[in-house]
Amino acid sequence: MTENQNRLNKSDCDVILRNPHISSMTDDVLYHLSLSSGSYDLQQMFGDIKFVCMGGTPKRMESFANFIQKELNIKLPTGTVLDDISKRSYRYSMYKIGPVLSISHGMGIPSLSIMLHEVIKLMYHAKCKDVIFIRLGTCGGIGLPGGTLVITESVVDGLLRPYLETHVLGKTIKRPAVLDKELAEELMDVGKEQLPDYNIVMGKTMCTYDFYEGQGRLDGAFCDYNEQDKLMHLEVLRKEGVTNIEMESLAFAAMCSYAGIKGAVVCVTLLNRLHGDQVSVPKSKLEEWQHRPQELAAAFIKKRLNLV
Amino acid sequence: MTENQNRLNKSDCDVILRNPHISSMTDDVLYHLSLSSGSYDLQQMFGDIKFVCMGGTPKRMESFANFIQKELNIKLPTGTVLDDISKRSYRYSMYKIGPVLSISHGMGIPSLSIMLHEVIKLMYHAKCKDVIFIRLGTCGGIGLPGGTLVITESVVDGLLRPYLETHVLGKTIKRPAVLDKELAEELMDVGKEQLPDYNIVMGKTMCTYDFYEGQGRLDGAFCDYNEQDKLMHLEVLRKEGVTNIEMESLAFAAMCSYAGIKGAVVCVTLLNRLHGDQVSVPKSKLEEWQHRPQELAAAFIKKRLNLV
Repeated sequence: MTENQNRLNKSDCDVILRNPHISSMTDDVLYHLSLSSGSYDLQQMFGDIKFVCMGGTPKRMESFANFIQKELNIKLPTGTVLDDISKRSYRYSMYKIGPVLSISHGMGIPSLSIMLHEVIKLMYHAKCKDVIFIRLGTCGGIGLPGGTLVITESVVDGLLRPYLETHVLGKTIKRPAVLDKELAEELMDVGKEQLPDYNIVMGKTMCTYDFYEGQGRLDGAFCDYNEQDKLMHLEVLRKEGVTNIEMESLAFAAMCSYAGIKGAVVCVTLLNRLHGDQVSVPKSKLEEWQHRPQELAAAFIKKRLNLV
Repeated sequence: MTENQNRLNKSDCDVILRNPHISSMTDDVLYHLSLSSGSYDLQQMFGDIKFVCMGGTPKRMESFANFIQKELNIKLPTGTVLDDISKRSYRYSMYKIGPVLSISHGMGIPSLSIMLHEVIKLMYHAKCKDVIFIRLGTCGGIGLPGGTLVITESVVDGLLRPYLETHVLGKTIKRPAVLDKELAEELMDVGKEQLPDYNIVMGKTMCTYDFYEGQGRLDGAFCDYNEQDKLMHLEVLRKEGVTNIEMESLAFAAMCSYAGIKGAVVCVTLLNRLHGDQVSVPKSKLEEWQHRPQELAAAFIKKRLNLV
């Protein structure tokens, strides 16, 4: 039995690294995070991480890092400030605030997937235990007004299939996109209790590879269908229980599940797609809405840390 | 005949906007670029653009903007500096230097696709003519040493299929990923003449949705195959004429071709995948290599502008 197979069954680490090659590497370069297992003591640096929160833009995840620092009342040593750990990669931004890691993943499944491969390996090298991953995002709502918080119950792709399809060594692999139901319900309970003024729903999320045609928008550079085709399609989605559309949850769910990590997706709707395609609410309203998933994550983390 | 159908046949604009809905919109919000047709005079701002150069990171495209400014000897008005036009989007970075637009596209097909939809619409609104799009990237080489410039002749996906598959309104659409052969040959000629010290090849590029398993790496968070499986697969790719692997060219080729835009992809290899998976050359060497596609693009643009 190899060390890695041992790792699969070890109770002191919930992260399953389904790769027997890593344990024999003397230096694992996490290239896109600007970290490596040979040059850094990753266990000392990241061993206390319990919550990995991620979202699209570096700006939003920097703002989340500052917000969570205040919420958890974490004092930094005099003369220190939060710094972007991955700044030298010029790809992702990563901040650490006590037991919380706040990371940007860019837009779309491939960008998220590179980051998740490296963060899952980071959790393995750091010997983290009982880690929870939460994606905090924005989305288009189906029949939901802007500003609604959607906690994802299940994920489907653009053809309503509940798995991530990837091409590995010339073959097509299907990985079930499964999220943790209990975690989703716990987030819902926290939301109802702590954020009673917000509209919060649980539902099926559709994840696409394209923002325009892939989501049935009429305002991309290409559009070979008309408004009626679009509305009929959105109606089919609504009847199938799809509450929102975004671009990362399929890979997030499939990869967390395959790694044995409990994952949750919380997105805020920026518009009701049944009423239009373009995001046109004022910047200040958008910023207020984009803060809502962060508030839910903070309330959940505080509850888990017994701070409320 | 609608205005848009007219546009398809107009000789004063090479950009084909295959969307009849855009011409009737009073304000087209290019959300992820932080521009809009209603609030800005896009023709006045961008009407002189002839070359749109794009690459992964904001940092690299800022560096390209500064490099091309020097190469084209463009003097800015006293008291002005280049500024990131899309900085308020927190997603892409975009710089304009005379007839050149330098834009970051993030990592992977979905991120590139959002940017391309909006830049193609930008070219349409600005009434640009004879625009050339060039992707300047990094890649893994197959049997090529690090630092080799690869000009893409044709593109295939992870299953060696020469088209982009997308899901539109619940159906699977296949768009041929075609690049302009004459443009590729012209780039090759310019490279041979102006950059004789560099190893430059033309070849077939494989484009994947994942950096790790999708490219047959042994160092991702998951790996269900062994080194022999990997090497056999890379050998199959080599025999099929695949010279390099990256993550954006399929959508770049398919979308440029569908929009009637001449497109080229120039990538530098960061490693020879037949010899390993991890990018481990020193930072200074990487930076030198990453500059090579920029040098080729600059030489090509100078030739086209009769500056050499």
